[in-house]
Amino acid sequence: MTQPLIGIIMGSQSDWPTMREAADVLAELGVDYETKIVSAHRTPDRLWTYGKTAVDRGLQVIIAGAGGAAHLPGMMASKTRVPVIGVPVQTKALSGVDSLYSILQMPRGYPVATMAIGAAGAKNAGLMAAGILALQDPALAARLDQWRADLSASIPEEPTDD
Amino acid sequence: MTQPLIGIIMGSQSDWPTMREAADVLAELGVDYETKIVSAHRTPDRLWTYGKTAVDRGLQVIIAGAGGAAHLPGMMASKTRVPVIGVPVQTKALSGVDSLYSILQMPRGYPVATMAIGAAGAKNAGLMAAGILALQDPALAARLDQWRADLSASIPEEPTDD
Amino acid sequence: MTQPLIGIIMGSQSDWPTMREAADVLAELGVDYETKIVSAHRTPDRLWTYGKTAVDRGLQVIIAGAGGAAHLPGMMASKTRVPVIGVPVQTKALSGVDSLYSILQMPRGYPVATMAIGAAGAKNAGLMAAGILALQDPALAARLDQWRADLSASIPEEPTDD
Amino acid sequence: MTQPLIGIIMGSQSDWPTMREAADVLAELGVDYETKIVSAHRTPDRLWTYGKTAVDRGLQVIIAGAGGAAHLPGMMASKTRVPVIGVPVQTKALSGVDSLYSILQMPRGYPVATMAIGAAGAKNAGLMAAGILALQDPALAARLDQWRADLSASIPEEPTDD
Amino acid sequence: MTQPLIGIIMGSQSDWPTMREAADVLAELGVDYETKIVSAHRTPDRLWTYGKTAVDRGLQVIIAGAGGAAHLPGMMASKTRVPVIGVPVQTKALSGVDSLYSILQMPRGYPVATMAIGAAGAKNAGLMAAGILALQDPALAARLDQWRADLSASIPEEPTDD
Amino acid sequence: MTQPLIGIIMGSQSDWPTMREAADVLAELGVDYETKIVSAHRTPDRLWTYGKTAVDRGLQVIIAGAGGAAHLPGMMASKTRVPVIGVPVQTKALSGVDSLYSILQMPRGYPVATMAIGAAGAKNAGLMAAGILALQDPALAARLDQWRADLSASIPEEPTDD
Amino acid sequence: MTQPLIGIIMGSQSDWPTMREAADVLAELGVDYETKIVSAHRTPDRLWTYGKTAVDRGLQVIIAGAGGAAHLPGMMASKTRVPVIGVPVQTKALSGVDSLYSILQMPRGYPVATMAIGAAGAKNAGLMAAGILALQDPALAARLDQWRADLSASIPEEPTDD
Amino acid sequence: MTQPLIGIIMGSQSDWPTMREAADVLAELGVDYETKIVSAHRTPDRLWTYGKTAVDRGLQVIIAGAGGAAHLPGMMASKTRVPVIGVPVQTKALSGVDSLYSILQMPRGYPVATMAIGAAGAKNAGLMAAGILALQDPALAARLDQWRADLSASIPEEPTDD
Repeated sequence: MTQPLIGIIMGSQSDWPTMREAADVLAELGVDYETKIVSAHRTPDRLWTYGKTAVDRGLQVIIAGAGGAAHLPGMMASKTRVPVIGVPVQTKALSGVDSLYSILQMPRGYPVATMAIGAAGAKNAGLMAAGILALQDPALAARLDQWRADLSASIPEEPTDD
Repeated sequence: MTQPLIGIIMGSQSDWPTMREAADVLAELGVDYETKIVSAHRTPDRLWTYGKTAVDRGLQVIIAGAGGAAHLPGMMASKTRVPVIGVPVQTKALSGVDSLYSILQMPRGYPVATMAIGAAGAKNAGLMAAGILALQDPALAARLDQWRADLSASIPEEPTDD
Repeated sequence: MTQPLIGIIMGSQSDWPTMREAADVLAELGVDYETKIVSAHRTPDRLWTYGKTAVDRGLQVIIAGAGGAAHLPGMMASKTRVPVIGVPVQTKALSGVDSLYSILQMPRGYPVATMAIGAAGAKNAGLMAAGILALQDPALAARLDQWRADLSASIPEEPTDD
Repeated sequence: MTQPLIGIIMGSQSDWPTMREAADVLAELGVDYETKIVSAHRTPDRLWTYGKTAVDRGLQVIIAGAGGAAHLPGMMASKTRVPVIGVPVQTKALSGVDSLYSILQMPRGYPVATMAIGAAGAKNAGLMAAGILALQDPALAARLDQWRADLSASIPEEPTDD
Repeated sequence: MTQPLIGIIMGSQSDWPTMREAADVLAELGVDYETKIVSAHRTPDRLWTYGKTAVDRGLQVIIAGAGGAAHLPGMMASKTRVPVIGVPVQTKALSGVDSLYSILQMPRGYPVATMAIGAAGAKNAGLMAAGILALQDPALAARLDQWRADLSASIPEEPTDD
Repeated sequence: MTQPLIGIIMGSQSDWPTMREAADVLAELGVDYETKIVSAHRTPDRLWTYGKTAVDRGLQVIIAGAGGAAHLPGMMASKTRVPVIGVPVQTKALSGVDSLYSILQMPRGYPVATMAIGAAGAKNAGLMAAGILALQDPALAARLDQWRADLSASIPEEPTDD
Repeated sequence: MTQPLIGIIMGSQSDWPTMREAADVLAELGVDYETKIVSAHRTPDRLWTYGKTAVDRGLQVIIAGAGGAAHLPGMMASKTRVPVIGVPVQTKALSGVDSLYSILQMPRGYPVATMAIGAAGAKNAGLMAAGILALQDPALAARLDQWRADLSASIPEEPTDD
Repeated sequence: MTQPLIGIIMGSQSDWPTMREAADVLAELGVDYETKIVSAHRTPDRLWTYGKTAVDRGLQVIIAGAGGAAHLPGMMASKTRVPVIGVPVQTKALSGVDSLYSILQMPRGYPVATMAIGAAGAKNAGLMAAGILALQDPALAARLDQWRADLSASIPEEPTDD
């Protein structure tokens, strides 16, 4: 099996219902990806290894979703120069604002490309990853253009009651 | 003059003290960029043209900074598939939380890679853009690795009183 | 069919359950309106055209509802001097505070008359639009006065258990 | 002296540095206005009278600025069908979020057209008022179009260091 | 019928499920009260009359509950020197923080004794009112002391699973 | 010396610049008061004694100001049925929202009459205390009515530039 | 029965579903604990006694959960030098942010070791308490190490759809 | 030199003015400590080594201060069972709420004992650490008791104007 160019990682199984939207849109666009659970706190060595091997394995983009004190995206950005896209997972008490601040407010040196809170953010993470790959892949660029055109074309002119 | 691969745009002259950090770090890394004022509200046609020509002009990343009802990054993401990085500029009454929500909370289809509020976010926008270009540019990748190594090496072991 | 004086636009079909209250109260007051889905991000050219033709088509007020990074009201205000009333639609993670800040915090030059978050705001958008038309339409002014008087008269003196 | 079509009212003298921007832009546009201090709490009877006579005196728009528990705009909207534009004045402890919520979150029946927090909101209140008057005043509409065109034309192409 | 010493007023019928806790605890303590719907926006004249006659009618405390742009408690405090206790009713989008800020952040001169958001606040409003009356009514003071002692005595030593 | 009817207590000397407004307005109104530093955490036994003796010493109202985890007003309300008015002192990091929530969100049984954050709240605490005493003191009621009338009369008709 | 080293206290029975997670994890780790309801407001004398006897009874850690104006953890920290761990219980209107600020923002002198809002925070309170005891108890330290190792080992490599 | 029992670590030199209060109070109490700069993002390997050797080196408590996306305390808690106390450093745009959420909202398994935002939190971190050590060190316990008694004794009875 070929190494996919995109890694989708998340802090726990409970993030998968959110992160699946990233996987689904990449599949729609014909982009391979791998999925892993990498918990910053419970499996820090897995995080270390994933980050340290990312360049050599040929990963081009890492999509990282996490909730609460969401340290996964930022720690991954510390371990590799591969672009990291962060998805703040919605949480119970603080609605994902905790996830958002933990992912977004990175210090100088270690950017995380933060997406909207929740599933819309996960889908957009997939699209952002595809947009980055498309810079080197004209066929993907064309599929992405078509995907965007289809989305625009799907909008009806007027709202309907049902 | 060659077309730079990176465009740094901002909603007004008053965003420049923040956005300059993006320009400065790109210069440190030897990456060309262009800077433009593109106001979503005051110069919407400029935004339109910038977005529509971005692919053909060869732009690879657009860094967009704005404050308040910060529509520039999201509207640019609507007009082009070139990856857009958004920088929420700090504001007087709401400290940039208004800018942040306006940039971050994009609907499915139009991702904006949102950075931290303020100048740290602008610097990280430059680094994220460089990281994306580095996927295709081994020399830049090496310079970015060095930049990151230098940053790590600059951290002293212990705090000092002055 | 005559061109209505009021346009009710919204970012997506999912905003209609909220925005319908604007339509309903205008109908109660005998004011014609048109409804359109105009997505700032998915159909930016539709937004452009709608805004550019608004004056010539004789629109007097535009009511625009949107959620999340709600760029529709502000971008419409950029494209036309016709008064724009914005309705922040409630959202899942941030309860519409994202919508609110994206609509409210407009820079100097492009006002959006922002209403309360959600359906109450949509109803008030309809009433505000009617109040603006009433400045030139004494019959409508009388109907609006009556509507307000009826609302006041409907309030019982004391709360009841059921 | 002719009765101006626009009333600018505010809760206290301390709101004037903010509200002056509304007055100034109306003056630029050649629109007459009156200014009054009308405190909802300290001068409720003044509020009552102002509201009750607004229609008969020929007021077309009321701009009301207030801070903290900012009841002036909403109470004025209760007393008259003349469109009320609310400006949340920035406050010390809560940065004007208290003013904003007190003005914005009006119940069904009594809309207040809320502007951004602080002086930008005051300026936009003046522009919104002008936009409403322009619906009946082609000369003003032309001046407003010109004002908007001048603003757009004033935006430089590139940011400058000083 | 004797004029009760306590008035419980609220902005609408929908506030009654919250405000009923104030009534219930006053009943438990043997304190008479009256209940009225007084909407600041829909029935401003009712508010005026209620406030202006409060002293002469012998009201000793007014408990006022309202939600959203909750102007009732503050406007009542403007119209009478009778102590006003405000109860912020929980709201859908902003959880009652809008109600809270509108009630709490009164300007110098017009205090509103603000209680916790929601039903706990309503119950405490009743207790605060009773505490004020108890300053002049030793029998009520004794009943209130007993009520407080009973509450303390009702707390079990250990939690139970059930 | 006679026991004053009003106690003004605060968590630390640093609260005095805020709380002094309560003292000043009581002095204006000719109401005696005592001032004490009572720290809930540093001097809990002082709090206990103050609360337990409040009724017997004849205190009619306790005004308690505190900042941060502001436990003083609520703990005092637990120890005595004398009405407690709480003033949230503004804080550095959280602007007094921490103080506010700690004072306001009391459980059923122990009301604290919460005032606005900061010095305006302190002044209003003094006025609320006076309003409570005025229920039994017609001369004070007259002075309070006059104070309120003077405040209303002091509001100029129009704002001035200086 | 031996005196347990850990006390788990909470403001009311309604906190038990949250606080039970602290008890459960201590039981898993073989650490004895006692549970008590200690309401800061309803049973202040119980709080006093608990705090004053804590050292002599040999308590090593106190875990205190409370919601709203959550004064229990901070007041306990005032009464004893035994380390206090605070758990902010989630609340209806403010999601536990009120509990959090009331527990966290303690003044210099009286630390409360604050945990995450809700049940995750309660479980971590148990683990923190165990970690403190483990400093003197090598067998517990080994069990805690094993517990942590088991948690890490339980994380699957990849997310699964069901 | 003996290995101190307490480690004070922080993300950058800029955190030292805050964290110095932890060091100072430990010095007052006669407790040795070490200070290190350990940046989670810039020096992740330093963090790894510090965490992995903490038990063997005999550290009993780690105090970790950080700002923004403050990952240091939580990542340290992942690497060692030595109790970690977190201090949220105040930040420019978000006042330390970003730091707070990143430190506080840890998932089950990895507690961080979070202190108040800023310098008061740092001082309390020192006191909490001393309280933990005092469980095994009667002389320190006596000094801590004295420190607390001195603090209580230092509170004056009444506020003074200067």
